[in-house]
This record gives sequence, structure tokens and C-alpha cells, in this order.
Amino acid sequence: MDSASGPPPPCVILDHPQLAENIGSVARAMANFGLADLRLVAPRDGWPQDRAWASASGADWPLDQARVFASVEEAVADLRLVYAATARPRETMLPVHTPHEAAKALSAAVGGGLGAGVLFGAERAGLETRDIALCNAILTIPVDPRFHSLNLSHAVSIVAYEWRRTVLDAPTRTFKDMVPADQATMLGLYGQLEDELEASGFFHPPEKKPAMVRNLRVALNRARFTDQEARTFRGVVTALVKGRGRHLAKLAGAKGKDE
Amino acid sequence: MDSASGPPPPCVILDHPQLAENIGSVARAMANFGLADLRLVAPRDGWPQDRAWASASGADWPLDQARVFASVEEAVADLRLVYAATARPRETMLPVHTPHEAAKALSAAVGGGLGAGVLFGAERAGLETRDIALCNAILTIPVDPRFHSLNLSHAVSIVAYEWRRTVLDAPTRTFKDMVPADQATMLGLYGQLEDELEASGFFHPPEKKPAMVRNLRVALNRARFTDQEARTFRGVVTALVKGRGRHLAKLAGAKGKDE
Repeated sequence: MDSASGPPPPCVILDHPQLAENIGSVARAMANFGLADLRLVAPRDGWPQDRAWASASGADWPLDQARVFASVEEAVADLRLVYAATARPRETMLPVHTPHEAAKALSAAVGGGLGAGVLFGAERAGLETRDIALCNAILTIPVDPRFHSLNLSHAVSIVAYEWRRTVLDAPTRTFKDMVPADQATMLGLYGQLEDELEASGFFHPPEKKPAMVRNLRVALNRARFTDQEARTFRGVVTALVKGRGRHLAKLAGAKGKDE
Repeated sequence: MDSASGPPPPCVILDHPQLAENIGSVARAMANFGLADLRLVAPRDGWPQDRAWASASGADWPLDQARVFASVEEAVADLRLVYAATARPRETMLPVHTPHEAAKALSAAVGGGLGAGVLFGAERAGLETRDIALCNAILTIPVDPRFHSLNLSHAVSIVAYEWRRTVLDAPTRTFKDMVPADQATMLGLYGQLEDELEASGFFHPPEKKPAMVRNLRVALNRARFTDQEARTFRGVVTALVKGRGRHLAKLAGAKGKDE
């Protein structure tokens, strides 16, 4: 299941990246989601640059292994599926996919042993149509049209995240380590609570008791208490009833003595 | 379909953010995906900070409107669905959702007119269990376990991206008859319950009290009580404490007369 044991994950290709800090942030995002093959096309300030490692927060290996190319043509030469990440899909007659759709296609490609990657443009300029034309499809992140300027490492984060989602096939981990108590246990708790409430005069008028009991049970049922939690709440009811009872009994005892 | 024409999108709450640059990057990611309500809990270096605006690349409005709070409790007081973004879900017995699942739940909540938000921890420390216990569910980004240190603005990017995907893809769903109480209401109930339990000697040994309080809150938070239910449970606590007290006081009164 882990990307380490499968075929090589897609590469990330940065076309003319400007800031070393961004390259480092991209490496960090790649490492977060199991990507490692970083390709740099003509980085503006040369390569390597210390500031990239400084901003990678320990995700050194994509930087250590990064390869530099003179052109996008060379950087994608060995790939069989290349996405262009761009918000301007209309310039080119290529299919436009969401990050999720692209991740599925990339997963299918590398699963079949095909080299695949995603090409990202420079921080300000983005991708040129000439470079988009070297790709098989377009990946567009659905930004708000009122503010579409995406940070480079944010864009890579989202694409890498979708890649990993696809690898993991998005299992739901809800209630994984959390086994709800059975209804007998819950009914034990409810019985105790309702007996104490009955004794306290809570259920009035009496004809409303069935609906009141039902409402209490429904609200607590939604919490899906574990066995431990059900025991804890039995202790809560006991403490509320007995603890204050003891307190008042003490007061009453003192009062008795005064008289 | 645009979030501008619908109900207010979820807010982003940053707990003790350290770097102004990160706050600016978060604002940029929010703006990219149609979010605007930014809440800062005790930013380390104070607020406002020019460097935040400098790194927002023009996404000024979430920063201009940002509100500062002294505590997470205050920051989430008006919300009815709060996710804790954390990679350490096992510490707390709350359901764990993927960003996609969380986005759908957030969409359903705000579609029904309910305030909702996602709480993010500080850059290095993350969220404390105490703060997670103020939330209704956990959002976990599926990072590679070999490198799980997510940049704060990358995490916000992914959550905000999933939010926008849901806005664009899904029809708005609403909670029908079930509007969860806001967190201020729940904290009122918890405060009453915990005061009474304290008075009854429930919290022993005293050093375990914080964990015991947290576990009680988490279990009840999962139920997502309505306002009516929260009132009912305040009545339950009062009845358990006072009802039996009245009974004992009567007994004590009788006893006093006998003496």
C-alpha cells in the first residue's frame, strides 16, 4: 500500500523556479505525501542553493536527488504521462482534469510501470503555452476566480495530497480505535440515570416522562460512548447524587447538633 | 454556486501561530479557495504584523478582518461544528475524518446556516489535547508517516481546497431539525457539570482532573447536543444534585425535629 513498495511515484517538475525557499517548500510537501523525484528546469539562481535545504524542514532527500535540466523537453523526456498544472487551460486543446482526476490517472500510469509527472510553472509567469504543449493533459486546481494567485508550494501540496489520497484509496478511519458500548451497557446507564431523575422529581408532569426519557437517550446515543465512557458516566451520576447528598447530610448533621 | 452568494464559509482558527509569514501564507491559501474568516488565538509576536501582509501576496482581506482571541474557547464560542486538524487522533476519542469528509460535513453545516470552522495548531507544537477536546471531530491529512511534518499553510491549503471542491461539486445539504448548540453553550453545560463533580469529590486524585474533564467533554461533544438538549442536560445535572439534596434535607429536617 505504501508508495515505497510500489512503482516509482510521479515526479514533480518545476519550470524556471525563482526562489530557493519555494523549491525547499516544494520538497517538504512532496515528502509529506510520498513523492521524491524532483526535477528542476533552469532554476533562476542556479543549483544547489542552501536556502532550499533550510526551508525543507528536514525533507532533504528530494533536494539531494534533484536533477537539473536545461529545458522542459529534456526534463519530461522519459515520461509517458505528463500533466501541466495551470489555471489557464483554454490556451491549449488538452483535456482538463481536477487534481483528483489527475491523481487517479497518474496512479494508473505508474501502476502500469509508466513514468509520470506534473509540470509546474514559475512563481509569477506560470507555464508558457509552448511547455503546456509538451504535456498530455492539464491539471487545474479549482481556485476562487477572485483570487487565483496560488503559491507554488501550495499548488504542489494539493497535487501531492491528491496523489497520496489515491495511493491510500481514502480509507475512512472513523471510529477505528473506538468501539461503541453495546446497547445493554447503555441501557444500564440510562436506567440508573432515569431512576435518579425520577427520585429527584425531574419528570414532571408524569405523562411527559416517556418523551423526556426518549429525548435523553437519543441525545446520549449520538455520542456512541465506549464501555469505558459508559462506566465513567455511571460514576458521574453517582457522584452528582451521592456527593452532594453527603455534603448536605453533613450540614444537616451539624444543624442537628446545634439544635 | 459561488461561496460569495451562500452562507458564510467556515472559519480558520490558528492556535498560537508563531510566524507572521505563515499567517500571511494561510490568508493567501484561504483567499485562493473562498475562505475569509481568520481567527488568531494568542499569536506569539502580537497582531497586526506587517510581515503577514507581505507574505499574503495581495490576499489582504482575511488579514484585515482577522480577529484575535485569548483562548481557543473564546475563538470557537459561536461555532456549532469545529474540526481539530491534527495528525495525532488517537489521543482523543473523537471521530477522525479525511479532509474530503470534513469538507462535506462543513459544507452541510454552513449550508444549514451553522457557524463552522477548522482549528490548526502552532507550527511546531500542534494542538494540545485540551484544545482538541473543544472540537466535535478530528481532521487528519493523510501524510506519509516517514515525513509527517506539514507546513501550516500547506495544511490550510489542502483543507481550503477540499472546502472549495465541495462547494463546486456538491449540492448544498442542510441539517434538517438538528441545529447543534454553539460551543459557548456547551462550555456552560460543562462548567456546571464539572463544578458539581468537583464539589462531590469526583475528581480524585486531583492531578487526574484535567484528563478526566477532557474525556467527559470529548464524549459529550460527539453527541452534538442541540440548544434544547443542552438546556435539558443542565436541568439533569441540577435535578441530580438538588433533587436528592432536597430529599436528604427533608430527612435531615425530620431528624432535627426528632432530636
